[in-house]
Amino acid sequence: MARSATDRESAEKLWGMIKGVRIAMMTTLDENGILHSRPMATLPHAGFDDGTLWFFTRADSPKVHELQEHWRINLSYADPGDQNYVSVSGIAQLVRDQDKIRFLWRDILSTWFPKGPDDPEVALLKVTVDQAEYWDSPSSAMVYAYGY
Amino acid sequence: MARSATDRESAEKLWGMIKGVRIAMMTTLDENGILHSRPMATLPHAGFDDGTLWFFTRADSPKVHELQEHWRINLSYADPGDQNYVSVSGIAQLVRDQDKIRFLWRDILSTWFPKGPDDPEVALLKVTVDQAEYWDSPSSAMVYAYGY
Ligand SMILES: Cc1cc2nc3c(=O)[nH]c(=O)nc-3n(C[C@H](O)[C@H](O)[C@H](O)COP(=O)(O)O)c2cc1C
Repeated sequence: MARSATDRESAEKLWGMIKGVRIAMMTTLDENGILHSRPMATLPHAGFDDGTLWFFTRADSPKVHELQEHWRINLSYADPGDQNYVSVSGIAQLVRDQDKIRFLWRDILSTWFPKGPDDPEVALLKVTVDQAEYWDSPSSAMVYAYGY
Repeated sequence: MARSATDRESAEKLWGMIKGVRIAMMTTLDENGILHSRPMATLPHAGFDDGTLWFFTRADSPKVHELQEHWRINLSYADPGDQNYVSVSGIAQLVRDQDKIRFLWRDILSTWFPKGPDDPEVALLKVTVDQAEYWDSPSSAMVYAYGY
């Protein structure tokens, strides 16, 4: 279904803010009801055309176990210097597709994945954005950016 | 119980990073299992001596309804410029104590609470830190900072 101009505009605004901050804090719910977050590098070259965001992850990491129990996550993008804040509520999914992994791989990722893209433990996380809000000044009321 | 030197040191490191970023993204779980976050200004003058963090809030806001159902929240403090990231898992509690509200009030808060500290809708959120982790460089493995 074609998106309206407003939807396209809000998707562009959202993606611009996300690319500007780039590192998300990804929050997951564990089996005890505790919320955990950790920094995760959004892949800018994966684009946002179909409303999805992409990350590299280790397939056996605690966050993957958590999201296999509760796949609804939050991504927050905060830049206190610029007073930009984004909240994304999304659905996360582990993707083990070697072609896609090679296509999205960049050398800078070896900081977290020293064995490179062919390590069988390296996988992708696909986050389908459900709702998102953003704030772009200290006094701004929330703006419904996307998905409402 | 007295804390060990290591606990005190890690609490000091944690509090230093939190004060440096100051604006948390506070993530709550709603009744449909969706995770929402929004920027919230930590009160630096409230201190961190007893392992609690303080925020002003509107008593009738969606986040308050969400945390009354599920009081376990996450606070993330991110500064992509300095590569500082903190994740706090904590328990939130609404506090309606007029003396404490007046004591913690600062004029800058009228950006969000234009009617001032005597508005009956103004309340405090107390977050008791349960566990926290921090990362202070892109390549840093997570450090168990507190509460483990
Ligand atoms: C700036 C920064 C970016 C990071 N990006 C990623 C990433 O893209 N993928 C990843 O798996 N871990 C990344 N990490 C490490 C994670 O924050 C985390 O320590 C690791 O994924 C383990 O998380 P878990 O134990 O909660 O599963 C990054 C760390 C920092 C400091």
